[in-house]
Amino acid sequence: MTKMFDAIIVGGGVIGSSIAYHMAARGMKVVLLERDRLAGQASNAAAGMLAAQAEINEAGPLFELALRSRALFPSLAAQLRELSGIDIGLERKGLLRIATTVAQMNELQHAIEFQRKAGQQASWLTGREVRKLERALAPDILGAMLVEEDGHVLAPELSLAFAKAAAALGADIREYAEVQSLVLEQGSVCGVRIRDTTLYGSRVVIASGTWSGPLMEQAGLSSPVFPVQGECFSVLTHAPLVQATIFGDDCYLVPKKGGRLIVGATMREHSYDRKVTLGGIGKLLEAAKLLVPDIVHAEWEKAWSGLRPQTADGLPFLGEHKELRGLYVAAGHYRNGILLSPITGQLAADWAEGKAAEADYLDAFRLDRQMDMKGAMNQDEFAH
Amino acid sequence: MTKMFDAIIVGGGVIGSSIAYHMAARGMKVVLLERDRLAGQASNAAAGMLAAQAEINEAGPLFELALRSRALFPSLAAQLRELSGIDIGLERKGLLRIATTVAQMNELQHAIEFQRKAGQQASWLTGREVRKLERALAPDILGAMLVEEDGHVLAPELSLAFAKAAAALGADIREYAEVQSLVLEQGSVCGVRIRDTTLYGSRVVIASGTWSGPLMEQAGLSSPVFPVQGECFSVLTHAPLVQATIFGDDCYLVPKKGGRLIVGATMREHSYDRKVTLGGIGKLLEAAKLLVPDIVHAEWEKAWSGLRPQTADGLPFLGEHKELRGLYVAAGHYRNGILLSPITGQLAADWAEGKAAEADYLDAFRLDRQMDMKGAMNQDEFAH
Amino acid sequence: MTKMFDAIIVGGGVIGSSIAYHMAARGMKVVLLERDRLAGQASNAAAGMLAAQAEINEAGPLFELALRSRALFPSLAAQLRELSGIDIGLERKGLLRIATTVAQMNELQHAIEFQRKAGQQASWLTGREVRKLERALAPDILGAMLVEEDGHVLAPELSLAFAKAAAALGADIREYAEVQSLVLEQGSVCGVRIRDTTLYGSRVVIASGTWSGPLMEQAGLSSPVFPVQGECFSVLTHAPLVQATIFGDDCYLVPKKGGRLIVGATMREHSYDRKVTLGGIGKLLEAAKLLVPDIVHAEWEKAWSGLRPQTADGLPFLGEHKELRGLYVAAGHYRNGILLSPITGQLAADWAEGKAAEADYLDAFRLDRQMDMKGAMNQDEFAH
Amino acid sequence: MTKMFDAIIVGGGVIGSSIAYHMAARGMKVVLLERDRLAGQASNAAAGMLAAQAEINEAGPLFELALRSRALFPSLAAQLRELSGIDIGLERKGLLRIATTVAQMNELQHAIEFQRKAGQQASWLTGREVRKLERALAPDILGAMLVEEDGHVLAPELSLAFAKAAAALGADIREYAEVQSLVLEQGSVCGVRIRDTTLYGSRVVIASGTWSGPLMEQAGLSSPVFPVQGECFSVLTHAPLVQATIFGDDCYLVPKKGGRLIVGATMREHSYDRKVTLGGIGKLLEAAKLLVPDIVHAEWEKAWSGLRPQTADGLPFLGEHKELRGLYVAAGHYRNGILLSPITGQLAADWAEGKAAEADYLDAFRLDRQMDMKGAMNQDEFAH
Repeated sequence: MTKMFDAIIVGGGVIGSSIAYHMAARGMKVVLLERDRLAGQASNAAAGMLAAQAEINEAGPLFELALRSRALFPSLAAQLRELSGIDIGLERKGLLRIATTVAQMNELQHAIEFQRKAGQQASWLTGREVRKLERALAPDILGAMLVEEDGHVLAPELSLAFAKAAAALGADIREYAEVQSLVLEQGSVCGVRIRDTTLYGSRVVIASGTWSGPLMEQAGLSSPVFPVQGECFSVLTHAPLVQATIFGDDCYLVPKKGGRLIVGATMREHSYDRKVTLGGIGKLLEAAKLLVPDIVHAEWEKAWSGLRPQTADGLPFLGEHKELRGLYVAAGHYRNGILLSPITGQLAADWAEGKAAEADYLDAFRLDRQMDMKGAMNQDEFAH
Repeated sequence: MTKMFDAIIVGGGVIGSSIAYHMAARGMKVVLLERDRLAGQASNAAAGMLAAQAEINEAGPLFELALRSRALFPSLAAQLRELSGIDIGLERKGLLRIATTVAQMNELQHAIEFQRKAGQQASWLTGREVRKLERALAPDILGAMLVEEDGHVLAPELSLAFAKAAAALGADIREYAEVQSLVLEQGSVCGVRIRDTTLYGSRVVIASGTWSGPLMEQAGLSSPVFPVQGECFSVLTHAPLVQATIFGDDCYLVPKKGGRLIVGATMREHSYDRKVTLGGIGKLLEAAKLLVPDIVHAEWEKAWSGLRPQTADGLPFLGEHKELRGLYVAAGHYRNGILLSPITGQLAADWAEGKAAEADYLDAFRLDRQMDMKGAMNQDEFAH
Repeated sequence: MTKMFDAIIVGGGVIGSSIAYHMAARGMKVVLLERDRLAGQASNAAAGMLAAQAEINEAGPLFELALRSRALFPSLAAQLRELSGIDIGLERKGLLRIATTVAQMNELQHAIEFQRKAGQQASWLTGREVRKLERALAPDILGAMLVEEDGHVLAPELSLAFAKAAAALGADIREYAEVQSLVLEQGSVCGVRIRDTTLYGSRVVIASGTWSGPLMEQAGLSSPVFPVQGECFSVLTHAPLVQATIFGDDCYLVPKKGGRLIVGATMREHSYDRKVTLGGIGKLLEAAKLLVPDIVHAEWEKAWSGLRPQTADGLPFLGEHKELRGLYVAAGHYRNGILLSPITGQLAADWAEGKAAEADYLDAFRLDRQMDMKGAMNQDEFAH
Repeated sequence: MTKMFDAIIVGGGVIGSSIAYHMAARGMKVVLLERDRLAGQASNAAAGMLAAQAEINEAGPLFELALRSRALFPSLAAQLRELSGIDIGLERKGLLRIATTVAQMNELQHAIEFQRKAGQQASWLTGREVRKLERALAPDILGAMLVEEDGHVLAPELSLAFAKAAAALGADIREYAEVQSLVLEQGSVCGVRIRDTTLYGSRVVIASGTWSGPLMEQAGLSSPVFPVQGECFSVLTHAPLVQATIFGDDCYLVPKKGGRLIVGATMREHSYDRKVTLGGIGKLLEAAKLLVPDIVHAEWEKAWSGLRPQTADGLPFLGEHKELRGLYVAAGHYRNGILLSPITGQLAADWAEGKAAEADYLDAFRLDRQMDMKGAMNQDEFAH
């Protein structure tokens, strides 16, 4: 008799791993398939900000989803530490969104207004107040929006903790398992093919981030997930330069355990190239110096990059395929994959259990929504 | 006007890079496409033996090909050093195929007879003679076949030197460029698709080793390239433990520059898993100790693995597609990719120039040959 | 006016860092001097066992010290996580000391008797019981002593957490600062010299582990701290192979976060060589296979080594110099540096505050005690 | 009977390793002692320029020494490749010393005049000519001095090749062997002490670069070797950005094998700190962009640093101790260690063979010369 999984999850990044964890925690028999190593792509490269408020300044489904997901982190951190031994490094020391021009100041004050109307905390600090909190900040900063609830986690640790906790709960984790195609039968998905092997399951979840395209295409979804490359680097000091996350216009600084400070991130659309360029480092370095001048004395650690999975309308795909029963997609989380991973895992486990989606706002993420295709790209290469 | 390449080469390992180099050296406009980084797979993992005689003990096309390719290395080493600055580490200090049982001794003496009939040097050394040459060898060795012409190179350096020399000659090298499909037009191949981009060229060469399957399938070739995983490790001493390559039944030892000694290699068929197992290291360690007892005092350096691209009949695919004009395959070199890379590059450049294949023996490598499919695998996964 | 430190701590391993942390936490102005990088030697190499009971089977000052130190870990873990962001990975899932022979079984049952008399938990599990707890253990194990209170931490993380928490509390941490000599004045120590610089302080603590010799000699202490090299390696699995620490006669296995398993450790006396040998790995591998046969399927991660600082009588030096006022030594913790680091830091802070030593048992660690010098070595090198 | 070495060499960098090689090549029994790993400090960090003419613009003993040493490289490269298998990467594609201001232009034209008078090749290229040679150079470059004979090698490879070739010739290489003191007897040096071991030899050569101070002090030499820290980074391209070494006022660019380009180097005097700072990278990056604007598109590889061993008058110490027979020093080569390593090794072998120094110019390097001590530093640390 053929082995049947309750769910086959394609993609071992933070989204796939969270889904595997949440499903395994509800007693389902799942297999997590990763074409290379776990957490090897965007999940490993992310700075780990939980910027639910700082990055989203308008009401809507993404804001809703982000707030719900952020609220899940404290209990999640404890569960994952228990099951996997991994501390996800949750820090909730606030985020300062910096204004250096009057225009930015006005924009941030509108954002504060919005956040308060939405029932969230956010407050304005003058330049003097902000430097009182964070002495390393540059003297010419005009002020900052303080979001006390936005924090951060260690992104690679979170991804691995999901996968290892899932394994501890019985999930089957397979690396170097590259899915070639979906196996379809009478309008349903019943498995996947990996080279010469077929795995059978009653559900398949595509959670491959930037690499979700080919399987989505096979399922008739005109797959507009595309990469936006981002470069980062990190520096080290013994005592931390800053306590809060510092969010400027051209870079952000996220203080990690042991005096590590991550500086991110550049943006290059439609590039699958994961090389870090000297120019990318130069831009971040200049931007970081403007925020925290003393960063030049910090020790260089390393640089890296990753590919954020973006969609044409900037919203992730979350939901079941309308025609192919048993096929789900959870991809395209762009800059919010770490933040949204807990709620995405929870939703996917709900789908599998047949629970009704809790709220209307999820409709915005459905797979067959109409999108302005401006974000997609189709180009031949021309001679110059 | 669309840019046309004379050849699009798919796969940035030692085979693809050699093809790019040889074509660029003949003035062709080529692009080399690699889905990850250059020389990141088997080419980076190989021990680099040029065991034309030691690994092949019967007359036939592979023996012919191997001898021709081995003869190309000395001049190639000089050209690549000049163009890329990279020394490929060519060493020609002979190879000792060790006998520890009488059966092995008899087998090797037959092999020597064969080599001599084939006009090649090969000689038998008694245990005493072999230990006079290599003092570190174990006292219970009965004797060895000495092949003076078999040597070795640094496999990762060779692969990169091909690619960098090709770049110096004007070849376009693109990493992180994963080809999704061939672009066909009226029975010819005219390009490849990489995500949203199409590249056009009058020839496409599939040279992706173990990963050649999907494109070969698209071209109607029932792709029997499959992986045989191999694990290796290396140790370090200040003065070399051995001068010659030592080739035993369960492992080989290849002495590299600066006192590095590579010990290889395990065999696991049909596994795409590139993890090194503790058990794999243990087996090699035990086998190496039997050959060179003092190896236990050497410094541990590191372990790694790679996937050798094998075919059902053990011969590589080398040639043009019978129906799809412009499509070529150079893949499935198994344990002989490093050794065969120069001749493969030369052949591919000949194909592109329309030169008649030099000799009948190449027919054995044609793409549409009949094969016993015992090597291929097709399995579902069953419950235990 | 010259800057005066309350204490100058020489050595940035786990002992020196703990002292810096405890002193800084009591408001002292301290500087921590490390000749290379923090936690670069034994502290980085340790497996992190807190084997207070499992390693010590006789009443005495070391047992006393070990139990007191072990009890400090839970609150310490929380403090260090808060101040440095670093989770020290404290796990308290018990330790199984394995018997495979009747002699070992008898020995362990005596040990259990001793532990109980000493008021500590320890119990005997039959082979069947032990395999019920840990299914991966070999079938021929006769039984095991279970110590529930012995656990482990992440040794590198503990060392860095001490140093970084000290920095957060205002301690001055200096790497690449190699102390050449003590600065003495009228029978007191008043500082240290680092190349062309003199640092002044009212106390100097020598905490350089294996490298404590030269400064101890300058202070007239016949320094019998000597190195015992130890090699380790680690393997990875998705779900942990074992839950408890497994302690055999020829190796131990310590399960770490994320499915990492550390296998340690060889013993080579009087060697400053930190190279890992192939033979060392081979011995550990064989020993580990006898305890947990399935470990051969685990993924190889890496190997490393460190130098344990041993003394002639096996006890650390802890205390003030009898003649040179202001000079303290905290070195020679051998295999127990991680375990004893919290109590050592606390004691050193007590010394600085002039608090009377709490108990007589500390007398055993005084600097001028008589020792059988069998452990020391003085040898010329002779021709063979 | 005690084992006697012909020479004990203290320091396993490029200088000590060259001495070991040259002595072993002349049949002497030598031991090379290194406190950590071979080539672990400045020798590993150097960019490897052989800038005999480009860095030295006045007649004198250093110029003489540099020219003689540069001339040794071609034959040396072949010998080391043969004995160790290591290619030292010798490239002789010239060096361009760039002028961007009229003042620099005048200075370089004087330098050219000097070089010609000294019988050396050097020529002036206009901006247009220089960009014809090197298309990647910035358009605003006024011109450059071209030195055709100055080239470069791979510094880490050269250092290791010396040591490994020495080992192949029978030299005893010991790592993790930290010399504490010289062993003196009746006005002669007869050995060294390493912890509890004494090694005896008829000659001792101090070749520890920046770390030569303590042994020189023990020998009564007022040791003014001090460190000047330098930071570097490297970038990668497939085809090289430049062919020649590009030498500007604030940085230099050295093109290495395989498209690697080293950018160096900052200067920080009297610092033993080997950390790379973000600010150091920023300065080099800005300077490199001014010379080769397209460098911003190159791939970041890594950053590192090393400590150049400087002396008060900028000249190395090379010679025998005037009173202590058998003691030699070869240290303080500052930025010229790689360049001067062949001649230094040759000289040291001459000393050991009692050959008269060839030329008067060596007198400038004698150990007891008078020096303006401005370079030395003696400072206490004061409160701010």
